[in-house]
Amino acid sequence: MPTRLVEVRQNVLKHNDTVARALRTRFQESGVFVVSLVSSPGAGKTAFLEKSLDLLRGQFRVAALVGDLATDNDARRLARSGVPVKQITTGTVCHLEAAMVESALEGWNLKELDYLFIENVGNLVCPSSFDLGEAMRLVLFSVTEGEDKPLKYPTIFNTADVAIISKMDLAAAVEFDESAAHRSILAVSPGMKVFGVSAKTGEGMDGCLAFMISQAHDHQSGNIPRQV
Amino acid sequence: MPTRLVEVRQNVLKHNDTVARALRTRFQESGVFVVSLVSSPGAGKTAFLEKSLDLLRGQFRVAALVGDLATDNDARRLARSGVPVKQITTGTVCHLEAAMVESALEGWNLKELDYLFIENVGNLVCPSSFDLGEAMRLVLFSVTEGEDKPLKYPTIFNTADVAIISKMDLAAAVEFDESAAHRSILAVSPGMKVFGVSAKTGEGMDGCLAFMISQAHDHQSGNIPRQV
Repeated sequence: MPTRLVEVRQNVLKHNDTVARALRTRFQESGVFVVSLVSSPGAGKTAFLEKSLDLLRGQFRVAALVGDLATDNDARRLARSGVPVKQITTGTVCHLEAAMVESALEGWNLKELDYLFIENVGNLVCPSSFDLGEAMRLVLFSVTEGEDKPLKYPTIFNTADVAIISKMDLAAAVEFDESAAHRSILAVSPGMKVFGVSAKTGEGMDGCLAFMISQAHDHQSGNIPRQV
Repeated sequence: MPTRLVEVRQNVLKHNDTVARALRTRFQESGVFVVSLVSSPGAGKTAFLEKSLDLLRGQFRVAALVGDLATDNDARRLARSGVPVKQITTGTVCHLEAAMVESALEGWNLKELDYLFIENVGNLVCPSSFDLGEAMRLVLFSVTEGEDKPLKYPTIFNTADVAIISKMDLAAAVEFDESAAHRSILAVSPGMKVFGVSAKTGEGMDGCLAFMISQAHDHQSGNIPRQV
């Protein structure tokens, strides 16, 4: 990459970090636990989110922001769950930035929320360097994508807190090698927590959400602030 | 995006276009038909390529360049087909650039090739603005990714010449709606040629490659130079 581009990019990242830090403080003070989702396009972020909102909304006050280059298909799909949802369209930008999240939150009272989900643009590269002020970042990859995906996109796996292997209902059809996938994840991010789930059948969703809830509890007690 | 970043980005694109134009002339003069592949990570570019090399190498002299952020897994996988293959690793860059292709070609005599395939980094956003000097660009998306993917990533579909719906063997398992997918593609790129294929079963591969060969023939006769 040319030197000037690198310099300008560093300024953009520095600005993003400042906005993200302010967001993180605001989320913490409002008592809302913010979870972001990153993955390649079509890995099932929206299906995972749809199922999560459905399982959580009886017990908790939840909301979601969803990012895409174009269309508000995901927001319309998630709005069916009855929880507050806003679409962020990025145009040609391949990731969400903290300032986009900040704008999208205008008019929402964060104190009225327990969990806020932020679904990033489908991309395994660009979102990795942009902090959104989230307390937990989930990286999803589906059984149909190939077990070596973490090795090919190490940064996004490194900057996430939890890996979700999605579409487990298709595992047999694609001869998915689960232990190879775990090895790939742990090779780039040793000790990372991994959950295999299917939003379609519900498999693994409870365990995954129970983990998130326990982390949110620790987080609110100030035990494990996310380090970025 | 901040103005300075836009300006620097435009310079990078302008430089890329210059290198790509020179590559295109060189490819044309050498009589090699260059086909690039773009898709999200895990859509099956490498499997499609593996099958294509296998079907073509008896009749034609074929070679491939494959891009990834990290690992040479794909090059090693494709090298099993016995054709010349080189891996381009981009580090943190989310797309191939013409200069990377130019460097990777060092030491290869293009006159000894009929077809050169270039597999881009798995990404539905970043590769769209970078011309690689190719004569034909294929965009793949798999039946597992959702029928509205073209609507969400219109630019990459607009800048491609042919759309390939991959993993058709999984269509029933994921209740894939083929006509909805075609509608999405044609909404963003009217008149676009679409092929449904499965690299696993071989379904649709012959038709797709026959189309490529006919385009290559027209191209060499100077009938349809790619306009960028």
